[in-house]
Amino acid sequence: MKKLNIGILGLGTVGGGTYDILVKNKDIIQKRTGVTIEVVKILDLRKRPGVDESLFTDEPDEVLNNPEVDLIVETLGGIQPASSFMLQAMKHGKHVVTANKAAVAATYEELQKTAAENNVRFLFEASVGGGIPVLTAIQNALAGNNFLEVMGIVNGTTNYILTKMTEEGADYADVLKDAQAKGFAEADPTADVEGIDVANKLCILIALLFDKYIAPTDIPTTGISKITGDDIAAAAAEGCKIKLIAHATLKDGQVVCSVAPEKIPDSHPLAGVSNEFNAVYITGDMVDEVMFYGKGAGALPTGSAIVGDIISVAKEL
Amino acid sequence: MKKLNIGILGLGTVGGGTYDILVKNKDIIQKRTGVTIEVVKILDLRKRPGVDESLFTDEPDEVLNNPEVDLIVETLGGIQPASSFMLQAMKHGKHVVTANKAAVAATYEELQKTAAENNVRFLFEASVGGGIPVLTAIQNALAGNNFLEVMGIVNGTTNYILTKMTEEGADYADVLKDAQAKGFAEADPTADVEGIDVANKLCILIALLFDKYIAPTDIPTTGISKITGDDIAAAAAEGCKIKLIAHATLKDGQVVCSVAPEKIPDSHPLAGVSNEFNAVYITGDMVDEVMFYGKGAGALPTGSAIVGDIISVAKEL
Repeated sequence: MKKLNIGILGLGTVGGGTYDILVKNKDIIQKRTGVTIEVVKILDLRKRPGVDESLFTDEPDEVLNNPEVDLIVETLGGIQPASSFMLQAMKHGKHVVTANKAAVAATYEELQKTAAENNVRFLFEASVGGGIPVLTAIQNALAGNNFLEVMGIVNGTTNYILTKMTEEGADYADVLKDAQAKGFAEADPTADVEGIDVANKLCILIALLFDKYIAPTDIPTTGISKITGDDIAAAAAEGCKIKLIAHATLKDGQVVCSVAPEKIPDSHPLAGVSNEFNAVYITGDMVDEVMFYGKGAGALPTGSAIVGDIISVAKEL
Repeated sequence: MKKLNIGILGLGTVGGGTYDILVKNKDIIQKRTGVTIEVVKILDLRKRPGVDESLFTDEPDEVLNNPEVDLIVETLGGIQPASSFMLQAMKHGKHVVTANKAAVAATYEELQKTAAENNVRFLFEASVGGGIPVLTAIQNALAGNNFLEVMGIVNGTTNYILTKMTEEGADYADVLKDAQAKGFAEADPTADVEGIDVANKLCILIALLFDKYIAPTDIPTTGISKITGDDIAAAAAEGCKIKLIAHATLKDGQVVCSVAPEKIPDSHPLAGVSNEFNAVYITGDMVDEVMFYGKGAGALPTGSAIVGDIISVAKEL
């Protein structure tokens, strides 16, 4: 039986979910791939009950430069040191799988170039839309298309807030407080509500769909913090819902893009995407419209996407 | 530059769409794969204006046993001779890509076994949901999951008829006549309206999701021909829409399955799938719910899925 040894950087929510899937579904993954996949090293300061203590280290090099490790799962979050760790792992000949949209968006070109130079795989399905397998589809099953447009609801916090404002006729500030109390929004919600997280994800979608890198900071970005109950009522009167949309269109060979609240007609498939759900709606010149829908966050949905990427490396062994 | 030479069996709607995509998007496909993909032989009695006449043959062996052909696209439709042709091509060491749900469902186990024995790829993304990349996702990005349930709207004709009955309060017979006049239903609509086409697709979904072969004729199947305007009104009064659902659930380790009209609550993502659109809604133990939506038929959407399968073979060269 072939083996694929995994090193995990950061055993938090997503890293922990990935670990749990690899343990719980080990048998079926082995049956489907013909490969035994095992976590052999974990970079984290905090050990986790139930996980073999000897796997843990607080020394990055013991994972990144470990000859036993074939593939690195990066789930630290944030641009640094995550980006440097991924580049270092690639230079040591290790495949890299990550859920980290901020790092992928900020360091995209260097990460792709370094992966190619070192002949390793660099996969990041989990970085956009959590468990929804949209990036894999763009790069494989849909790759016969010239892509024309993408519209994405790719942030669960803002979609939850907008859904509650719509359903309850409530104002932004009240719903945000409630979302924070329920754990759907962070204490400092800026990255979510101002569209920064969505801009990172749109940068990644544009890179894959249009083979063009536009830095997240160069994407015109408006969040939802200025949306009022009146705005939502006015949209409803026109038969529309307000959604925070990651939007990119190919116009005369140029990519036109924005992150902004948009009025989506009730008849559009994206209008029915409620609460914390995500969806990505893509138009290709051959396939026409396709939409991918599911949970855009959470330990197990996001871990499912990471494990999918690990499986695709395993199948190539 | 590496080369992948294609033989097409049947240059009808779907075969023709595939040919058109390979020609029109040749440059971008070559850029994405690093492989030149070329159609070198076509089995069809009728030549097509604009396609090099010398490619055509009416002798199956000139494609199936042609040493220049690396991959066969089977778009003849029907169980035979399509199944025999695919098996013969595999035995001659050729990869096989097909859109033919009837042949895949009827001959599934022999096709998979023969592909494995001859170390060739057997891909059939286009056979379920047309251009929607659901089968690839099940086998790759979602493969870390134990699958629990699938619900699919996978026949455009019946979904169009049910949508019109719902929107216009019309009866089945009148809408069917209108659909036939508009080309959305065939002169003999039996395979569509009685659920036979859907049972073929459910057989394929079950095989991939649950690693179990249930012949389409063993799936309890009820079509839509007995649905009345009153049934639809009664469902609407309960806040539901009637949809023809391919349904399979894992219960105590057993696959329970059916094709039948079901009442779907308006809040369910499948309720919003209207007209000729298709969608497949899958539950996995880790990813939870995901849905794939798009055009389930047509020359270019279906051709897009076939070309996606061809690209995945090209990438492995």
